[in-house]
Amino acid sequence: MSQPPLNLRPVGTVESPLTDGASAPKQGDEGAPDAWLVFEPEVADALEGIRVGDEILVITWLDRAERDVLRVHPRGDASRPEQGVFSTRSPHRPNPLGLHRVEVAAIEGARVLVRNLEALDGTPIVDVKPVLSQSVDER
Amino acid sequence: MSQPPLNLRPVGTVESPLTDGASAPKQGDEGAPDAWLVFEPEVADALEGIRVGDEILVITWLDRAERDVLRVHPRGDASRPEQGVFSTRSPHRPNPLGLHRVEVAAIEGARVLVRNLEALDGTPIVDVKPVLSQSVDER
Repeated sequence: MSQPPLNLRPVGTVESPLTDGASAPKQGDEGAPDAWLVFEPEVADALEGIRVGDEILVITWLDRAERDVLRVHPRGDASRPEQGVFSTRSPHRPNPLGLHRVEVAAIEGARVLVRNLEALDGTPIVDVKPVLSQSVDER
Repeated sequence: MSQPPLNLRPVGTVESPLTDGASAPKQGDEGAPDAWLVFEPEVADALEGIRVGDEILVITWLDRAERDVLRVHPRGDASRPEQGVFSTRSPHRPNPLGLHRVEVAAIEGARVLVRNLEALDGTPIVDVKPVLSQSVDER
């Protein structure tokens, strides 16, 4: 990692009832709550075209993760053999990026309500993309 | 964007015959070539568990993209109305993260050959994740 750092700028923040990493679900489809994506006013124009009902990919910066972890027991289960973090969804990884597929439930200006987001309250948002699929890129 | 920057560290680099953004395909399934993901030796352990034939998600830093673009004509087609970049796959966006779904074709130590990667030669790699079965992408 001798190259210079690349600077991400938060474009928003997660507002969620989830505040405790230990109790957070491992994946959004395992009982995660709805959450608000609160975007910075400067990037509001970038949201245009996102509609209620869309599925989107949200990329977050998992600011409470560890960055010096290269191998983990999958899902924190010590009975399972360690794997490299690039083959797991562990938040602990050299660049703690979170990738979340969520459905848009409401939009209020630069605030977007989404279903089933496993990110903790206060997590910085760094990007949003349409879901990867054969149809999405034709939009 | 008043918060402090978040520092990504490159964990590797793309080696690809694609050197020119203008001629690069817009998506990996539109004729992109095979490419090598060349990881830094320090993160080699993080690759453990990735196998030939796996589909993986590669997150890159699109170092030749513009960061001050909030709206684009989808696919660069001026006849289509502008959309916010968060509802498109444009490389130009506040944080120029690329998200690529690729198949692993070969592994040689910390070098991983993948199919159909649309990233340009020299693009920094910042993360690798397994394809999200039900959570991100069931294609």
